Amino acid sequence: MTEQWDKIIIGIDPGTNVMGWGLLGIKGKKPSLIVMGVLKLSRMEDHYMRLHRIFERVKGLIDQYLPDEMAIEAPFYGKNVQSMLKLGRAQGVAMAAALNHEVPITEYEPRKIKMAITGNGAASKEQVAAMLQRELNIAPEQMPDLLDATDALAVALCHFYESQKPIQSHGAKSWKAFVTANPDRVK
Amino acid sequence: MTEQWDKIIIGIDPGTNVMGWGLLGIKGKKPSLIVMGVLKLSRMEDHYMRLHRIFERVKGLIDQYLPDEMAIEAPFYGKNVQSMLKLGRAQGVAMAAALNHEVPITEYEPRKIKMAITGNGAASKEQVAAMLQRELNIAPEQMPDLLDATDALAVALCHFYESQKPIQSHGAKSWKAFVTANPDRVK
Repeated sequence: MTEQWDKIIIGIDPGTNVMGWGLLGIKGKKPSLIVMGVLKLSRMEDHYMRLHRIFERVKGLIDQYLPDEMAIEAPFYGKNVQSMLKLGRAQGVAMAAALNHEVPITEYEPRKIKMAITGNGAASKEQVAAMLQRELNIAPEQMPDLLDATDALAVALCHFYESQKPIQSHGAKSWKAFVTANPDRVK
Repeated sequence: MTEQWDKIIIGIDPGTNVMGWGLLGIKGKKPSLIVMGVLKLSRMEDHYMRLHRIFERVKGLIDQYLPDEMAIEAPFYGKNVQSMLKLGRAQGVAMAAALNHEVPITEYEPRKIKMAITGNGAASKEQVAAMLQRELNIAPEQMPDLLDATDALAVALCHFYESQKPIQSHGAKSWKAFVTANPDRVK
């Protein structure tokens, strides 16, 4: 890369069939797309091969782009323990690649990411993609076929927005959380 | 190490509070303890720090002992999706360390390990430890305080026993599985 960024955020949307990834460059207060893509995990490959490919890809992206931070999409609730165990493993190997390079990780729930990007926690993947395209001025030919890529870019942009929030906002949020948790202690 | 082994198996019992590990050396058809231990994950550490420490420890053991194979204790069923997600992550980072060094992984259910070591799938940790001590001629002073270490050694020994099974046994097992899956196709 010839362009110098103040900060690079790697966004990861891990899955056991497709993993989305995106790299966001920050210059001043302006976020820009560096590159995004997907890792398709073939049905032919066994579980360990898939985990290996996730680890290798995330490691490769970190080696190539040297991101300062990782943001990862992480659903906290799933349908069953089997799928959550598999998802946990996919998240674990992606996280291991970051931890191995001392890249700090922050995780975000899907609903929070959609809210941060579109203002609607129940937005569709298409709505998230359309908003990203507008916010980051992405040319139509640069938009991916698979929306796992834009989902990954979305978690990176969500992380950037979070880092831009004034301290006061965090305080207000904590206070609100305190009120909700302790209604009897607020007069 | 001065002793030459035909094969070295690393056994891992991953958990989010304590991770057990054990190294089993095979010479001819005789398994021996090389070393075993636990990684205690402090309550003070956050989730990522714990995952990082698991990854670093497993990576360090692989670098030091150069095991040929990894055997990992992996419950397939858990009480709730939250604990399974966390367990999946712990397994994932341990697996990533093995995959990064091209060490093949085999996983075993706790019940299967207990059955292989003691002949009783519902054996206690103490019974497993006592049987390991006898089978591997481990001196009392070498026995660990925390039975997560012997649990990890047990999965390594279980993996060795599995590798010693004649092909016929594997065939019989597959046949049994076939019969169970296809009762109408067996006369």
